[in-house]
Amino acid sequence: MAYFDNAATTFPKPDCVYDFMNSFYRQCGGSAGRGTYELSLSAGQLIFETRSRLQKILHCHNKQIVFTPSATLALNMILQGLIVSGKIKTVYISPFEHNAVTRVLHHFEKAKKIEVRVLPVMGNLSYDFTQIENLFKTHKPDLLVATHVSNVIGLVQPVEMLCLLAKKFEAFTVVDMAQSAGLVELNVGLETIDFGVFAGHKTLYGPTGVGGFAMNSGFDLPPILFGGTGVESACQDMPLDVPQSYEMGTINLVGVAGLYASTGWILETGVDELWKREESHRKRLLDILTQYDFIKIVGTHEANRYGGIVSVVIDGLPSDTAASIFSKLNIALRSGLQCAPLAHKTLGTFPAGTVRFSTSYFTRDEEFGELVRVMEWIRENL
Amino acid sequence: MAYFDNAATTFPKPDCVYDFMNSFYRQCGGSAGRGTYELSLSAGQLIFETRSRLQKILHCHNKQIVFTPSATLALNMILQGLIVSGKIKTVYISPFEHNAVTRVLHHFEKAKKIEVRVLPVMGNLSYDFTQIENLFKTHKPDLLVATHVSNVIGLVQPVEMLCLLAKKFEAFTVVDMAQSAGLVELNVGLETIDFGVFAGHKTLYGPTGVGGFAMNSGFDLPPILFGGTGVESACQDMPLDVPQSYEMGTINLVGVAGLYASTGWILETGVDELWKREESHRKRLLDILTQYDFIKIVGTHEANRYGGIVSVVIDGLPSDTAASIFSKLNIALRSGLQCAPLAHKTLGTFPAGTVRFSTSYFTRDEEFGELVRVMEWIRENL
Repeated sequence: MAYFDNAATTFPKPDCVYDFMNSFYRQCGGSAGRGTYELSLSAGQLIFETRSRLQKILHCHNKQIVFTPSATLALNMILQGLIVSGKIKTVYISPFEHNAVTRVLHHFEKAKKIEVRVLPVMGNLSYDFTQIENLFKTHKPDLLVATHVSNVIGLVQPVEMLCLLAKKFEAFTVVDMAQSAGLVELNVGLETIDFGVFAGHKTLYGPTGVGGFAMNSGFDLPPILFGGTGVESACQDMPLDVPQSYEMGTINLVGVAGLYASTGWILETGVDELWKREESHRKRLLDILTQYDFIKIVGTHEANRYGGIVSVVIDGLPSDTAASIFSKLNIALRSGLQCAPLAHKTLGTFPAGTVRFSTSYFTRDEEFGELVRVMEWIRENL
Repeated sequence: MAYFDNAATTFPKPDCVYDFMNSFYRQCGGSAGRGTYELSLSAGQLIFETRSRLQKILHCHNKQIVFTPSATLALNMILQGLIVSGKIKTVYISPFEHNAVTRVLHHFEKAKKIEVRVLPVMGNLSYDFTQIENLFKTHKPDLLVATHVSNVIGLVQPVEMLCLLAKKFEAFTVVDMAQSAGLVELNVGLETIDFGVFAGHKTLYGPTGVGGFAMNSGFDLPPILFGGTGVESACQDMPLDVPQSYEMGTINLVGVAGLYASTGWILETGVDELWKREESHRKRLLDILTQYDFIKIVGTHEANRYGGIVSVVIDGLPSDTAASIFSKLNIALRSGLQCAPLAHKTLGTFPAGTVRFSTSYFTRDEEFGELVRVMEWIRENL
């Protein structure tokens, strides 16, 4: 099978990830951060070291790393926490946000707790910053949420600039790095970025079940989930410290072990090297797909940078039908809305959606070859 | 090292759990329930089959199994969902609840959204059901939450009877089976039990990072967390179906794979057999610990059933000091409040806490032998 669904989850992972998860969990599977005995301590050290590796990759030694079971949970904790705190009313989001952001906000917009505004983009999908500054002047932003890399088309958004603008108006800022952490350089340590959210199992090459976010330890974010943390157990309020305040329940130790290995591999390989490979894989995808006049590439403009995600529509084939044909021909990819209806509205592909191809560092020559054969078959037979 | 901290997480797991997690994730690590291609389908089948195994173990084919990242998250979803729905005001809890329950409730009690009442137990830690019925008559319960097995002393609570009583008053009922699922038989299919919560990594012998709950698909529980589910992506409300309504974000596939293997092993071994082994391990623990007059066993009464958890206090040694001595002598156990201050208040061991020993199916003869040697050393040296 040729795997072009890496934006859902990178597959395969580096061998060291499987190897370390397996050996660490077999040997050191005691619960973390609760006991004082050896197994538990070594689990605690692993967690500590993984946080530190993430700080390195995200350039944010000035911020704390909080682990959550997924980027979706992280976004819920941040967005709901800010809303509950009563500090935000007007929320601006980029026009490429995922349901992990829009569904959370929608819930509170329906309840009239917040107002959500979508940032406009120009025809080439880039921002007119003067226009945005004027928007902010008319309706002051309290919060800006922007995805770093679109999960639909791989577009790298200028989040540094957006956050800088939002901070001029004293808004809080959240960057969703689910599709970019470990792949696209971003200085999450910037004072203009309040929260950087990551998924462990995508561009960070770890397993499912672990994600998180970076935040300043002094930031007053009320927890929205409660439970045991192994510290200050007598107190019925959640501890105030970061990360304990947001890490209730038993941590996913085997997940963190995988992330420990994958972040080690990323630091060794280099984010630049990963990005170069991704760019070249995207180019190979485009070289193949643009050979066929029944394929229309969605949302590509020379003005922008893109990760290894390419969305297409196929003449005369609804995206779901196309996806099941590809599936029968042993090509793994994702069709439909990819949980990001807003992005498709922006791109003019709502509600039909697209067929999405996505690569990783490990996409093999044979997989590109397989894709060529399948495309030829489609040209001849459909 | 002798591992007596199985109530934190069972360790080791059955070999098949490590083996299957490793081989499944290496071979079939595509994201689940999103794509239509082969890898994704086999992940979907794995998830389906794991739900079905849990229904078998919990005797609840009439209920749906929802996966969450932990029992703590499951309890947050259930308790907060019920509170948000506005259907509950008076909440009764057993006097052995964990912070995963009490901290959630405390948050909403502080905000005057609910009132929390602790069920009284008699001196032998059993319930006077007539007294409780009278309590319920005076202050009608809207919700009852009871832990099936205390994480502090292993006490098996009569949750069937408590739920039956609560249902007479049309209350909702939640049973926390974090320390009992797969070990203590309970018919979660009973109409008197609305929610049965499980942790994957304790008595179910799966890995950390996966837990969940059983519920009726017709139960109107508003979701409190939002995000992509891979279905009905165009809609900005969460889907209404169970389990989709509560499974936002990417599921912990490697965690579910581990739980698939462990639940298969439990069904093969038999819950009765696991319970018998646990009872005999508890007996061995007690036989050892009662040899020493400086050890006082906490909360044991002949009237009750207990799982393999024994809490003790040691004359002249604070529990944290004792734990670090045991740790230096290579015995893994847990000291302090074990995230359950309410249980310690009930037992008269608050705030100092206890030293907790806990066994599993895999506790070895050599580990009991090691414990004897360490206890002898303590008798002679302290």
